[in-house]
Amino acid sequence: MTDPVALTADLIRCPSVTPEEGGALDLLQDLLTQAGFTCTRVPRNGIDNLFARWGDKGAAKTFGFNGHTDVVPVGDLADWTVDPFGAEVKDGMLWGRGATDMKSGVAAFAAAAIDLVRDTPPDGAVILTITGDEEADGVDGTCALLDWMDANGEAMSVCLVGEPTCPNTMGEMMKIGRRGSMTAYFTAEGVQGHSAYPHRAKNPVPALARLVDRLASHELDQGTQHFDASTLAVTGFDTGNAANNVIPAKCTAMANIRFNDTHTSAALTEWLQAEADKVAAETGIQITFTTKVSGESFLTPPGQLSALITKSVEAETGVTPEMSTTGGTSDARYVKDHCPVVEFGLVGKTMHQVDERVEVAQIEQLKAIYARILQEYFA
Amino acid sequence: MTDPVALTADLIRCPSVTPEEGGALDLLQDLLTQAGFTCTRVPRNGIDNLFARWGDKGAAKTFGFNGHTDVVPVGDLADWTVDPFGAEVKDGMLWGRGATDMKSGVAAFAAAAIDLVRDTPPDGAVILTITGDEEADGVDGTCALLDWMDANGEAMSVCLVGEPTCPNTMGEMMKIGRRGSMTAYFTAEGVQGHSAYPHRAKNPVPALARLVDRLASHELDQGTQHFDASTLAVTGFDTGNAANNVIPAKCTAMANIRFNDTHTSAALTEWLQAEADKVAAETGIQITFTTKVSGESFLTPPGQLSALITKSVEAETGVTPEMSTTGGTSDARYVKDHCPVVEFGLVGKTMHQVDERVEVAQIEQLKAIYARILQEYFA
Repeated sequence: MTDPVALTADLIRCPSVTPEEGGALDLLQDLLTQAGFTCTRVPRNGIDNLFARWGDKGAAKTFGFNGHTDVVPVGDLADWTVDPFGAEVKDGMLWGRGATDMKSGVAAFAAAAIDLVRDTPPDGAVILTITGDEEADGVDGTCALLDWMDANGEAMSVCLVGEPTCPNTMGEMMKIGRRGSMTAYFTAEGVQGHSAYPHRAKNPVPALARLVDRLASHELDQGTQHFDASTLAVTGFDTGNAANNVIPAKCTAMANIRFNDTHTSAALTEWLQAEADKVAAETGIQITFTTKVSGESFLTPPGQLSALITKSVEAETGVTPEMSTTGGTSDARYVKDHCPVVEFGLVGKTMHQVDERVEVAQIEQLKAIYARILQEYFA
Repeated sequence: MTDPVALTADLIRCPSVTPEEGGALDLLQDLLTQAGFTCTRVPRNGIDNLFARWGDKGAAKTFGFNGHTDVVPVGDLADWTVDPFGAEVKDGMLWGRGATDMKSGVAAFAAAAIDLVRDTPPDGAVILTITGDEEADGVDGTCALLDWMDANGEAMSVCLVGEPTCPNTMGEMMKIGRRGSMTAYFTAEGVQGHSAYPHRAKNPVPALARLVDRLASHELDQGTQHFDASTLAVTGFDTGNAANNVIPAKCTAMANIRFNDTHTSAALTEWLQAEADKVAAETGIQITFTTKVSGESFLTPPGQLSALITKSVEAETGVTPEMSTTGGTSDARYVKDHCPVVEFGLVGKTMHQVDERVEVAQIEQLKAIYARILQEYFA
C-alpha cells in the first residue's frame, strides 16, 4: 500500500513555490515510473509539467486525475510556527505549505492509482496530469498538458481535479462547475470646464454614474438548477479630481461579473456595450470599455462521475457531498473542454495561509475515496 | 482734475500682493485726507482696510464705492514681458498686476470722488470702502469694514462696487446680483467584501452613483427674470480602489451648485438631504454629506442705482449696459445685506493673467462714468 501521508510529506519538503518545480515532479515521476506509468515531461515557457499514463493510449475507459504541485509563497516566515517546508507532524496534523492546496490531493490520487494498477490492474487506462503552474498565471500548466495531449492523441474519458473543495467537513462538497468571471474597465470622456458654467463643459461623471447604477441594478438571472444567481459588483469609480470648481474631462469605473451557465463573456460584453451606448445616447458622453475574462462559466451536469464520487464519499465518510458550483476559478475550466470534469478534495480551510496544515486522517480518507472511485469506475 | 491713470500707475507700483498692504492704502489715505475725507484704518486679523468718508455721518444721501487694492500673485515672473509692478505704459495700455483687477477701478472712483467734493461739493456724503482682502479668503476685508461701519453708525444709501464687469467692450455689462455657490461633499459607507460574494458585502458605489445621477438630472429651476437657470455639477467621484475583486467599503463624491434667487443654501441642503435619504432607503447604504457655502445668491432689483449707471454709461460710451447676474462671487455678496449694490467696471479680460493690462483710455472713461453717476445721484 502506498502511503499518501508520507508522499504528501515528501512533496511538502520540495520547495516548489510557483513557478519552481522544486523536485516535486521528479519525485512523482520516479514513483510513477516504478509503478509502470509512462511519464512525459511537458515543459512550456519555463514551466514544468508531468503527464503520466498507465494502460493503453486511447483505451475506451481512461480515468484522469488533475492536480498541481506548485504552491503559493510562504509570506513572512516569522509568522509561521513551523518550517513551511519541514512537513512536521503534530497534533494529528501534517504542517507545511501545500499541505491542503494541494500536495495532499496529488499524493492521494497518485497513491490510489499506483495501488490500483498494482493490485487490481483495470481494463482501461489511468492518466495523471500534474502541473507546476496553477497558483500563478495558470496558462502554461494544465493548458500546456491538454494541448500536448491533443497533439499526441492522448485523451481522458472523465477527469477528477483533486483541489480542496470542502468548506468545513470532509466529504461535504464537490464542484461540478464554476461560475465565469470577467471585469469590465469603463472610461467616460467629456469636456473639461468650470463648474460655474456646466453648459460649456460635458460632464462625464453623472453619465458613468448612471451606467454603473443601471448595471448594478440589473438582475442578470435568478440562478439556475446548479448555479447561484450571477452577480455584478461595481468595484471602482474614480475621477481623481480635487478641485470643486472643475468639471473633469474623464472618469473611470470597473465592474466585476461572476456569471453562471446562462451567460458567456461574449454575450455579457454585448449587453455592456448596449447599456453603455444607451447612456451615451442619453447624455452625449462617450463611454468605452475593455474587458478581461478570467474564465467562462461551465457545468458538468450530474452524471456517472458525480454519482461515483457521491457513492464513494458516502461509503468512506457517511457524508453526502453537495454538488456545488460556488467559488472562484480552477483548472477545471480548461479540462471541461476535453471531457466531463468534477472537482473533489479535502477541507481547504488553511489554504494560502500561514501554518497551512491538514489532518493526517483526512489524507488517508481522501486516498480511500479516490481508490473507491477508481474501483467503481473500472468495475 | 485728479488723473486716474497716474493714480492707477502709482497703485500698481505698490506690491500689494494679497494679503500685503504694500503701501496702496497709505497712498490712497494720504490723497483722500488731503481732499477732505475722514479716513479710518480698519485692520482685522492682520488684514488692513481703509474707510473714508466725505460729508456728514448719517447723511440722508450717502453714495458708497467699494473696491480692493490687493492683487493676486504674479505667478512665474519669467512669463511676464514687463515688470508686473513697473506700471509701464506702451501701445496705449498701462501694464502691471492689478491693472484691471482692480487698481484702475479704485483709482477711477477715488479720482471721481475727489474731484466731485472739490469742484461741486454735494448735499450728502461719499463713502469709500477699500479692502486688502478680496483676492484671498475675503473674510477680513469688506466684511470687516461693514462690521465696523455697523458698530460706528456709518451707512451707505447705495453702493457701487468697481470690479471689472465688462466681458469684451467697455460699458456693455453691469452686475445687479450674483448666483450663490455651494459645494456638497458626500460619503457613502457600506461593507467591504469580495466581488465574488457581493451578497456578503454592501456596495456603496452604485448607491452614490444613483444619487449623483439623480442630482445631476434634476432641473433646479428654469432661470428667473434676472438669472440663468441654477446648475449642479458633479465634480468628483472616487473609490481609490485598484483591486477588481474587492468591493470597497467607502466612496466619496462632490457636487458644486450655482444657484439663483429661487434658492438658498439652507433649502438646497434640505433637498440634498432628502435625496440622500431616499437613496439610502432604497439601497441600505448610509450616505452623509457636508457643505461649504461660498455665498448666497442675491439680487438688487433694477432701480435708481442701475438706472443711474445705465444713463451715465450710455452718455460716455454710447453703449447700453446689460443688467447681468453671471459670474462667480464678489464682495457685493456682503454689501447686499446693507444697501442696494450694483457692480460696474471696465473690461476684465486680462485679470489674473500674466501681462495684465488695461487701455489707458478706458481708465479715463471709467472715471468719467463714475463722475457722472455721482453728479446725477446728488443732482
